[in-house]
Amino acid sequence: MDVARILVGGEWRPANAEATFHAANPATGQDLPLAFPVSRWSDCDLALAAATRAATELRTIKPEKIAAFLEAYADNMEAAATIIVAAAEETALSVTPRLKDVELPRAANQLRLAAAAARTESWRRATIDLEKNIRSCFAPIGPVVVFGPNNFPLAFNGVSGGDFAAAIAAGNPVIAKAHPLHPNTTRLLAEQAFKAIEMAGLPPATVQLIYNVSNENGLKLVSDPRVGAVGFTGSRNAGLQLKRAAEDAGKPIYLEMSSINPVIFLPGALVERSEQLAAELVDSVLAGSGQFCTSPNLVLAFDTLQTEPFLAQVARSFKERSAQPLLSAAGRKQLHEGVTALTSAGAELITGGNYVLGEGYCYANTLLHVTASQFLAAQHELQREIFGNATLAVTLRNQQELQSILRLLQGNLAGAIYSAMSGEDDEIYNAIAPLLREKVGRLLNDKMPTGVAVSPAMVHGGPYPSASHPGFTSVGIPASIHRFAKLECYDSVRSERLPALLRDTIANPSTWRTINGGWIKG
Amino acid sequence: MDVARILVGGEWRPANAEATFHAANPATGQDLPLAFPVSRWSDCDLALAAATRAATELRTIKPEKIAAFLEAYADNMEAAATIIVAAAEETALSVTPRLKDVELPRAANQLRLAAAAARTESWRRATIDLEKNIRSCFAPIGPVVVFGPNNFPLAFNGVSGGDFAAAIAAGNPVIAKAHPLHPNTTRLLAEQAFKAIEMAGLPPATVQLIYNVSNENGLKLVSDPRVGAVGFTGSRNAGLQLKRAAEDAGKPIYLEMSSINPVIFLPGALVERSEQLAAELVDSVLAGSGQFCTSPNLVLAFDTLQTEPFLAQVARSFKERSAQPLLSAAGRKQLHEGVTALTSAGAELITGGNYVLGEGYCYANTLLHVTASQFLAAQHELQREIFGNATLAVTLRNQQELQSILRLLQGNLAGAIYSAMSGEDDEIYNAIAPLLREKVGRLLNDKMPTGVAVSPAMVHGGPYPSASHPGFTSVGIPASIHRFAKLECYDSVRSERLPALLRDTIANPSTWRTINGGWIKG
Repeated sequence: MDVARILVGGEWRPANAEATFHAANPATGQDLPLAFPVSRWSDCDLALAAATRAATELRTIKPEKIAAFLEAYADNMEAAATIIVAAAEETALSVTPRLKDVELPRAANQLRLAAAAARTESWRRATIDLEKNIRSCFAPIGPVVVFGPNNFPLAFNGVSGGDFAAAIAAGNPVIAKAHPLHPNTTRLLAEQAFKAIEMAGLPPATVQLIYNVSNENGLKLVSDPRVGAVGFTGSRNAGLQLKRAAEDAGKPIYLEMSSINPVIFLPGALVERSEQLAAELVDSVLAGSGQFCTSPNLVLAFDTLQTEPFLAQVARSFKERSAQPLLSAAGRKQLHEGVTALTSAGAELITGGNYVLGEGYCYANTLLHVTASQFLAAQHELQREIFGNATLAVTLRNQQELQSILRLLQGNLAGAIYSAMSGEDDEIYNAIAPLLREKVGRLLNDKMPTGVAVSPAMVHGGPYPSASHPGFTSVGIPASIHRFAKLECYDSVRSERLPALLRDTIANPSTWRTINGGWIKG
Repeated sequence: MDVARILVGGEWRPANAEATFHAANPATGQDLPLAFPVSRWSDCDLALAAATRAATELRTIKPEKIAAFLEAYADNMEAAATIIVAAAEETALSVTPRLKDVELPRAANQLRLAAAAARTESWRRATIDLEKNIRSCFAPIGPVVVFGPNNFPLAFNGVSGGDFAAAIAAGNPVIAKAHPLHPNTTRLLAEQAFKAIEMAGLPPATVQLIYNVSNENGLKLVSDPRVGAVGFTGSRNAGLQLKRAAEDAGKPIYLEMSSINPVIFLPGALVERSEQLAAELVDSVLAGSGQFCTSPNLVLAFDTLQTEPFLAQVARSFKERSAQPLLSAAGRKQLHEGVTALTSAGAELITGGNYVLGEGYCYANTLLHVTASQFLAAQHELQREIFGNATLAVTLRNQQELQSILRLLQGNLAGAIYSAMSGEDDEIYNAIAPLLREKVGRLLNDKMPTGVAVSPAMVHGGPYPSASHPGFTSVGIPASIHRFAKLECYDSVRSERLPALLRDTIANPSTWRTINGGWIKG
């Protein structure tokens, strides 16, 4: 049997496999032909040893070379776009527009922004106290293990996404653990990465790829002494296990785990533009079949004259739009379990709530409803992430109910408030926005949370348990890079022994540093 | 019996005490008269509830008021200096120069630097993407619980030290847990803090003080849902318990735990200035009776002609200098256990190694010695923090031995290399500095690690287990403030609803922000 090779220690080599697995095509439910290995610990051990050596070597390499690698990889990725997105059969995401026109360009853009950050070194926040001759800056933290999620096979892939780009920009080697739902996409990306490594002359083990490991070896991997840090995007259950293992070993681990992303419609907004808002909500909930980390799982609307027609329009659109395949059979099963848990807790099923018969992993677009008093009475059961094309609408009798709900929300990545352009909702807005602010990393106005722009000001993170630490973001360069860096201080170190970045004068005119308290460029 | 009151919910109130305790005078071993309470959970609960309300109120208060509080507190502290340092009987640290001339001015200086940071808001790192209308900044994380250590009763005290100043500057209320070895010092400081709160008109529960709690309630406190973050400076054993409890609850916790702070003398340095270096080492090891987090516990020197006389001079000075009291009887016992563990593992006792008879908690200044091969053969036993006036010298036959030792070191706060001014040690320096760099937060040249200057470039932190996260520092403003902050993003939020800091133009001309990628002041 032909089994895909892992990329470890600078070569594509056969895994020491304890088992093999196949990805499936979510549109047909059929297994795809290529077999992938579940690595034994010895593969992880080899990767860790090679990453340790690569980390040491990378510390002596000029940032320009790291930037050149990231740019070459972006170029390679674009050149091989047709091949890479052909692996869409693993995810049933559309080749165009989704993968080829949106996600691959986004991934390439992130690599180029990371390259620019690596080149200027401004992300290192060099801080110089000339009087006391103390100097410090961020420096690479060591080998980074990245677990990519199921839902963005290119832009969040462990071997090509935001965590990868940030870890590499900081000067760290990456050991990527593929998501087992799209191993071939990951393999094709890693091929382009590895070509770029050879082009740029980086240590060959700067990028390594393992397809899958047992649960036990996953925990062992993130807590290994040779690891510098871990990046994880995925489910809360898997995330919390990795979190504990890594933290018990003293390893920083950054997790993006779960979020219901409340969207609030204030009364005046529905008076002004109910139809448009219903259309926006439908697009947002059904984007990627609801499998976005920022998908609105909780819709909050006051019980006014507009609300019933508003929800009726959403329900109508949900029925009209054909259900898109979910990423896996397990995902569909979990979605159904989630919907069932909500109805068991008293939610009314307005539309959907059942499997769509046929070949693929489709589930009917689903809208549920409860009143605020029901929600408040059963919040543990009803405040629940339902990952997929479903959302729960809550109707509110008054502002107090909304405030009560906001107070008991867990941490979320994002939350939005739609209000009247006329200003008539401003009083309610002012009363509730501070409550929502405390519960989300990103607060939006008049906009759905599902677009996560790549911007230096973006925060894709939030209060626990949406993310593991509210002071970090996984999207947005340079901020996302700091997750994979440590602070290094040089106290009275002789001038010629300092890193170039920390000397009194530097060659690079585009580097921002703080000297004696003020920011200075060049 | 008269029991000191706790400062909770904006008043000095009787604790709900499950027990009481007394501090002792380490110079005499006698208990001091004032009784302090060990609080039951209800005191913690009251403090958490009051802190939650204060946190909400603080979010609406202008930074200027927070700055005014910090400055008033610094002024009050200086005005009450004589009273505060009279509590030196709890620690037996010298009133002058240590407490009055060094530590209290340092604490006041930290408060003023924190005030300046709060006032400019530059620490919030406002980041504005005008084109996409996405804006983000650091914001207060919520109530911060601070556990101060035994060794710096003023400058690291939970109610006056660096963690306190940083947490307040970020706009958070602080619940301080006093160190039970100096409750009265802590009480006197809290009195000045509380006066300053009233002067500045901050929410009264911005600063709260509990003297002691059971182990169980300490763990419950750091993992309470109302807590934003935790700062801890102390022993590894206590720290790791708190770490697990806080992290399991998803709470950021910043710990500074243990460190042996290696100091390396290269051969040429000892040829050039052996006597001077021996004197520097003695001063550093015996400073604060060796009870500094950055005290050199491990001295590495090549076995050359100069080394025996060098160590002999250190031993002579250790014998000549009278031993100063340690902070507690338990500390002396642990020090003796540490020294005994080292000798059991093969270390030769050159001088000291025994209790000094008499009233106080004195222990003989202690120098131990092993060869590098002994150290390498028993590294788990010999790589051990000995908190007190003792140090272990390791003599090296060659550079390979030094490299082997550096490779197996755990993470440390600081490490120093002394080398010849002539340049003759440069080759060895270049070979070993990268290895030491990986193991320390702060790398020094020709300087002992025991001075931790308050500077924006300082890093008082390091790789695990010296600290819990290598990307943060507990000394140095503004960097230390970020520990107690979360990232908040505003995506397409209407201009008039943005915090003043994130609007296109701001009033404060001294605020640094990044707008469209570049740093701009005002």
